[in-house]
Amino acid sequence: MGNVYAHVGQTFEPVPYDVVVLGAGRMGSLAAHFLMLERPSLKLLLLDQGGLPNEEGATILAPGIWTALDVPPGKRAQADWTRRLLTGDLSPEDGGLGKAGQSDAPTLPRGMVELLENSVDGSVPSREVSGLPADLADLAALPFARLDPLALSYSAASLTTRAAQSAVRTGADLMLNVKAQPTQTGVKLSRLSVTNTHQVVVHETHLLEAGQVIVAAGAEGPHLAENALGSVTHHARAYRQLPRLNVDTSDTTPVLRAANLTLRPYAGGLTLVPPVHHRDPHGYAPTGGRLSGVPVGLRRETLEDVLRTMDVLPALGTAALELGRSVSDVPGAWLSLPQGGWPLFEPLTERHWLLLGGEKADLVGPAVARELAKVVLESVK
Amino acid sequence: MGNVYAHVGQTFEPVPYDVVVLGAGRMGSLAAHFLMLERPSLKLLLLDQGGLPNEEGATILAPGIWTALDVPPGKRAQADWTRRLLTGDLSPEDGGLGKAGQSDAPTLPRGMVELLENSVDGSVPSREVSGLPADLADLAALPFARLDPLALSYSAASLTTRAAQSAVRTGADLMLNVKAQPTQTGVKLSRLSVTNTHQVVVHETHLLEAGQVIVAAGAEGPHLAENALGSVTHHARAYRQLPRLNVDTSDTTPVLRAANLTLRPYAGGLTLVPPVHHRDPHGYAPTGGRLSGVPVGLRRETLEDVLRTMDVLPALGTAALELGRSVSDVPGAWLSLPQGGWPLFEPLTERHWLLLGGEKADLVGPAVARELAKVVLESVK
Repeated sequence: MGNVYAHVGQTFEPVPYDVVVLGAGRMGSLAAHFLMLERPSLKLLLLDQGGLPNEEGATILAPGIWTALDVPPGKRAQADWTRRLLTGDLSPEDGGLGKAGQSDAPTLPRGMVELLENSVDGSVPSREVSGLPADLADLAALPFARLDPLALSYSAASLTTRAAQSAVRTGADLMLNVKAQPTQTGVKLSRLSVTNTHQVVVHETHLLEAGQVIVAAGAEGPHLAENALGSVTHHARAYRQLPRLNVDTSDTTPVLRAANLTLRPYAGGLTLVPPVHHRDPHGYAPTGGRLSGVPVGLRRETLEDVLRTMDVLPALGTAALELGRSVSDVPGAWLSLPQGGWPLFEPLTERHWLLLGGEKADLVGPAVARELAKVVLESVK
Repeated sequence: MGNVYAHVGQTFEPVPYDVVVLGAGRMGSLAAHFLMLERPSLKLLLLDQGGLPNEEGATILAPGIWTALDVPPGKRAQADWTRRLLTGDLSPEDGGLGKAGQSDAPTLPRGMVELLENSVDGSVPSREVSGLPADLADLAALPFARLDPLALSYSAASLTTRAAQSAVRTGADLMLNVKAQPTQTGVKLSRLSVTNTHQVVVHETHLLEAGQVIVAAGAEGPHLAENALGSVTHHARAYRQLPRLNVDTSDTTPVLRAANLTLRPYAGGLTLVPPVHHRDPHGYAPTGGRLSGVPVGLRRETLEDVLRTMDVLPALGTAALELGRSVSDVPGAWLSLPQGGWPLFEPLTERHWLLLGGEKADLVGPAVARELAKVVLESVK
């Protein structure tokens, strides 16, 4: 069992680590889990600027949708293996993490229904599909449906917590509320605490030696790599908001997709997952939109996606869609956009790796984290 | 000859107008020109928030490159007609505007050279192309070239000035330094003046009746249409910067293109025209980039385009590229991104039209402005 340093009251004595994983979101926690699985004797430190997972990160807001419809042939093996991890069908020896905890959203085999204007290979009449929320879609405008019976919904946050806990149980150390910056020989840590007046301040700093460093800081990863190591990459990021649509759903409601919006049943309603069209520019601060001058909390670009879809999903044009009044009213997070669109890792220096999940981490993120673990172990003793 | 109201010292007596054109950039000035050409008796007011053309608008920074390489078959007629306007070969009766003034950059038949990694239909060895600036491109990495002998470089600002002057000579009124907002019955004018302390203030306002209103305010047009008229459109905008590359060029240097950067000979050097990949989000303020922590004036996204191209255009990796220290050091402007990418007009109400140029106004903007003039005249008496 490793040590957990959750707050600065817990004394930390810096020692050299074999591996430091910078970021305890989905990708970092899974990498730590697979590293410890393969080599339980590894001296590993997993750390995060916030909690587990970070309240401001992309993991906690990840839609948690696995669907074969989004998996091209070249990603099939990674996706199938990921699905076995998600359903709890993978044995612990192979890295299985069991099922979600009792207080977490469980992995549910909901299936997915993609509503279409035109018929495609294998589509069925949409009126024959059961389980769709009433009054959500105009089935006359979307008369066809493509089904994915294999689709799952799951909690990426729960998976992340289980992965980090598994790593700690095997012997990894975990430090939360710590800012970290890669250095040429390891990592510089700045442990954070909060003052009486709610200011976040640096309590103490440590220079840590590390054999290998995995930068798994999500959308911040490429910036960290560039500013701390001078490794210029072309990965980008986008701010994604996931507004809630108050339409009755249950544990058997399928995940829905129509006109490039995805709707994920969640807590008795739907979470709307907009498409990520492209990167947001450097210097962009998330901003609520305006519609004919009226301020709303959803960013304008997403608002336009919703407006375009209202004809076929009339529920989007009602008060059931929670638009809020400012950007903070609509849950959102920065999402990394790895080049090529799929989770990846790449070397930054002989010691440092960049690990990125992004939009498609839901499909294959765990498999990519596992591959990096194997590669990193080749460099450790 | 119409009246010119350049500053608030010139008394303006509001009278009803047949047509008000809101924006004296390229699209608005050309629309005014063609309206007056077709109907010299028209009571027309052309106005702009700044000068002619606006110092902050996209017209003054337009690359001014006409090339057949960018014209698909469906746009050929508009582009060919535009080229005749640009070369001065169009007769005044057909809307010709003569040649650029003595102090303006002239229209020059430079031709265009597109440097390529691989051969395509009609390409020639790049080593056989004459007129390329020395030490600009690595011709071993770009061994092929596609030529467009018809390509021109020209000054969009000069064309705009000539169009507005032609409209005024025929009888149109021109008002500068005036903010305008469409209203249900016409336009609300706010004439601007500058105080001793360099603050821009509203000097006087007028409510003007207008039979038809053309909103030709560039990237601001869709916002004006939405906020003043409630007409929601999905057109977007992007901030484009055009840095200077100090490489020797002359009047016979061809326009160059390599790896999706365009390089336009200008004032003895090159103006670098980066690709416009996608819209900028609502709320984005142009921001200089950073490279390994060092601030530069070029936005990060464009910087990355330059970095990617350095291998084949080594001059970009030298001090010849003027990157500046802040965003204001590198000339830039908001460019409208009309849906579909091509200049267009569309009705907003029975009285108001939206006219947008954007990136491809260089190729067909004048032809589209002329088409709108014909359509608008059908609605005037």
